[in-house]
Amino acid sequence: MQAPSLPTPRVIHLNTRGAVILAEDSPETRDSRGIYLPNYIEPVSHIAVDIGGSLAKVVYFTRSPEPPSSPSIVATRGSSCAVSSFSTPSPGSPSTSPPRISPPIPPSSSHIKNGTLTPLVLESHNHNGSSSFFNGNSQTGTLDTDLLRSTMLRTSTVHHVPGGSLNFERFETANIAELISFISELITRSAHANGVSIEEMRRGVKIMATGGGAHKFGDIFERELEVEVRREDEMECLIEGMKFMAMIPEEVYYFSDELIQEVSHPGSGRGPLTKGVLGKSGPNGNAHPSTSSSSASDHVNEPVLERPSPNPPQYAVTFESGEPSAHLPCLLVNIGSGVSIIKVDADGKFERVSGTSLGGGTLWGLLSLLTPARTFDEMLALSEQGDNATVDMLVGDIYGTDYSKLGLKSTMIASSFGKVFKNRGEGKAEGERGTFKAEDISRSLLYAVSNNIGQIAYMNAEKYGLDRIYFGGCFIRGHAATITTLSYAIRFWSKGTKRALFLRHEGFLGATGAWIKNIDSDGADSASPVSES
Amino acid sequence: MQAPSLPTPRVIHLNTRGAVILAEDSPETRDSRGIYLPNYIEPVSHIAVDIGGSLAKVVYFTRSPEPPSSPSIVATRGSSCAVSSFSTPSPGSPSTSPPRISPPIPPSSSHIKNGTLTPLVLESHNHNGSSSFFNGNSQTGTLDTDLLRSTMLRTSTVHHVPGGSLNFERFETANIAELISFISELITRSAHANGVSIEEMRRGVKIMATGGGAHKFGDIFERELEVEVRREDEMECLIEGMKFMAMIPEEVYYFSDELIQEVSHPGSGRGPLTKGVLGKSGPNGNAHPSTSSSSASDHVNEPVLERPSPNPPQYAVTFESGEPSAHLPCLLVNIGSGVSIIKVDADGKFERVSGTSLGGGTLWGLLSLLTPARTFDEMLALSEQGDNATVDMLVGDIYGTDYSKLGLKSTMIASSFGKVFKNRGEGKAEGERGTFKAEDISRSLLYAVSNNIGQIAYMNAEKYGLDRIYFGGCFIRGHAATITTLSYAIRFWSKGTKRALFLRHEGFLGATGAWIKNIDSDGADSASPVSES
Repeated sequence: MQAPSLPTPRVIHLNTRGAVILAEDSPETRDSRGIYLPNYIEPVSHIAVDIGGSLAKVVYFTRSPEPPSSPSIVATRGSSCAVSSFSTPSPGSPSTSPPRISPPIPPSSSHIKNGTLTPLVLESHNHNGSSSFFNGNSQTGTLDTDLLRSTMLRTSTVHHVPGGSLNFERFETANIAELISFISELITRSAHANGVSIEEMRRGVKIMATGGGAHKFGDIFERELEVEVRREDEMECLIEGMKFMAMIPEEVYYFSDELIQEVSHPGSGRGPLTKGVLGKSGPNGNAHPSTSSSSASDHVNEPVLERPSPNPPQYAVTFESGEPSAHLPCLLVNIGSGVSIIKVDADGKFERVSGTSLGGGTLWGLLSLLTPARTFDEMLALSEQGDNATVDMLVGDIYGTDYSKLGLKSTMIASSFGKVFKNRGEGKAEGERGTFKAEDISRSLLYAVSNNIGQIAYMNAEKYGLDRIYFGGCFIRGHAATITTLSYAIRFWSKGTKRALFLRHEGFLGATGAWIKNIDSDGADSASPVSES
Repeated sequence: MQAPSLPTPRVIHLNTRGAVILAEDSPETRDSRGIYLPNYIEPVSHIAVDIGGSLAKVVYFTRSPEPPSSPSIVATRGSSCAVSSFSTPSPGSPSTSPPRISPPIPPSSSHIKNGTLTPLVLESHNHNGSSSFFNGNSQTGTLDTDLLRSTMLRTSTVHHVPGGSLNFERFETANIAELISFISELITRSAHANGVSIEEMRRGVKIMATGGGAHKFGDIFERELEVEVRREDEMECLIEGMKFMAMIPEEVYYFSDELIQEVSHPGSGRGPLTKGVLGKSGPNGNAHPSTSSSSASDHVNEPVLERPSPNPPQYAVTFESGEPSAHLPCLLVNIGSGVSIIKVDADGKFERVSGTSLGGGTLWGLLSLLTPARTFDEMLALSEQGDNATVDMLVGDIYGTDYSKLGLKSTMIASSFGKVFKNRGEGKAEGERGTFKAEDISRSLLYAVSNNIGQIAYMNAEKYGLDRIYFGGCFIRGHAATITTLSYAIRFWSKGTKRALFLRHEGFLGATGAWIKNIDSDGADSASPVSES
């Protein structure tokens, strides 16, 4: 059931029919919610690790025949999404069964986190061992081994039990030991759950390593974890991951052109934005219509769109259809520590065409020097309470008014941090040097980095004639101000002709792609050294 | 003698034949050396002021029939440069006289700074007053009133005495009072030198105001200085100024493609770079050939050019010919507090096509927060002693090697400030937070801003099919690392097809353009309210 309009270089036998994104309680995991795949059977357990300059991202699959908890978003598109050029039904799963949408199991996000690997190749062993599952570790939760067993009874052969969750975890690259310990515990736990020895479990596990650190850290994984490590090209994985994610219902979204509200302002820092635009909080009550069509710009060559300064307008979140054919060709802008810009053709061919060193690492690095914030999320929280107009030089600060001849509104940022020097520069003693609020600095720098990425992305999209610009990478973190700024930059520069698109699992494209790369056309990993066991 | 290939929208009757750039002793004035115009007669004294977000630039003309001191660069191009589409001989000056290149007057840079305005309209008054010239101010030097008088005796009418210097001064916009006081003293001094009352002198003076602050500060000038103020469009002035400067011999230069030396490194901070690439110091002894053609890049799509990181290669300075027809069409990138990118067509028409808020104000503002430096020059001096590899995440830091498949060398900057977060982020107590040297931070940020501007400039040049990219504005300051980085960015991204060009008076394009705008086709200012005096 290939879509003729979208030939792909690789057919992935991963059944995404009925896929749902699971609910999460914590804002920290807003971009790492599990994805439940009710029709997928894992042939070989593999753990994908995407090691970037700042963060290492982990993706793995844990079997579970029922969705583990109330999915936040229901899979509504059924077979139209599931049977795509990227996915064909797994041999063992009944392709006619309806997607399961009602959650029979009590909600438990820890269930997902603490699931175990259950590779098909170990099927002969997984009838016992449930008693030894709990290892007393704080990470250990309540794995439904009873449920697993009861489900197995319902099917003729154990390897035909479909269903399970893709899990997403994040670690700092600087703390690679924590990641190794996490995987080690996962393997130990899985050995117990499958009733096999740790050595045997290790043979049934493979690490798919990608990202800049795959080579550097791959050897460490092999040595410390005693499992096979396969290294995959970073850009290939990014594209594979994006193509896979595009098939998950309500994964891809954009901010509609209709302004509905403004980003929350000083004093409302713990408001909806703190949880991200796709958090569970209700709508921001602060809604009012745009004023973008008023004033300025009788100048014909310039758009009348308002720029995201000092207070970006916010847009309604709109989900993309899951039709894979709609996603390509596109530009993928992956914002990690640095930024890679990748052109993806309609046939899936891709090329890294540009990039910039001004990325997440720049924001995080500078803000860790300039503010007391210690984590990315603390920095984003600061920025939500800031006013960049105290540090940025706006057009109005220079001109006293709009520079309407050029279509530059008085609220546009003329110079990021442009107000700082005169308060701290020449002739000022140390005690006289102006100070600036961490909140304002954070907001200004977030705008500067986001606007700049948006501008460079737009120019590349224009150069290659692409109208769809996907933003991925751990910089975004579902953060409203960031998404708004990027959306606005694309809208402003393209005069509304191009669209910025986002993915809920934005930070896990590379890791997801690496995970998918171990699934070959037979629905099993023929290259696996454990396939003979 | 119009060059048929280069029609211009405005003919400027400013005689630049024999123009020379004067020597200056101080590194602070490396970009503000006077320009001696031996054949120009000033009809009306006017002072041009370009008020940007951070700096106010001043240009004015002081009469002096001989070049005031040993010119650093000799005017060698004679009439081929002087008689151009932008300049025709002034009515009163003998167009056949050879350019004067030997300096008969002892060197004195203060002579230029402290020259006086001598408008033609006050000719009937300037036979006395020399005795009252010295006002005891420290800025007062040794104006050659005797010389002026003796020269006048050599000519039939006083207003036919040609020759004088264009003077360039810079003030911080935040200290606008200092600028007003400077102009006020210039007017007082000039009144004395011309033997007229201050009121009469004020009527013979006009301020041409441009830049973002022209409107905001124009009223203040009118009120405080009691002179006429005319406001001119910022972009128009930039272009006029660039076109004028392009006619001055050895004004426009670029870094040749042949690498000759590397930027000086830690320990040699007071070396040649401190004085700028066009300073008087001798060649940097540290010369060695490029290694850019070695290693890496068997990848066909990527250039083998080395990027300016961590240590940019330095190039030989090459001067452009003064042929005006060679300069257009071009892209002008004016880097002040913010950045304006202007497309200039072959016929001189122009449009502001892009810009970025990441400009000089961003560098100066952030460095004034992050380092003890108080002035731009202190910041540049710091950067010369820094090593950005301690704060920037390089490709090699992530990959452990080149990412040769993508043509990314291990020394490329993957993430500006990308090494900072892991030393200061999560889990670190205040005492454990890593510290970074001000020098390294300065160098990293200088690279980040310069590279980014170069990249955006390149993309615009590519979009509009322009091969010549002029960089102007006070950000550059003749600073080798900045110029190298911008040159390299253009070279890298364009694969050597486009060229970055610089101007020695880079910061004064707008002010010079505003000054030129008061020179009309009659060689006198018909709009001046003092023309009837």
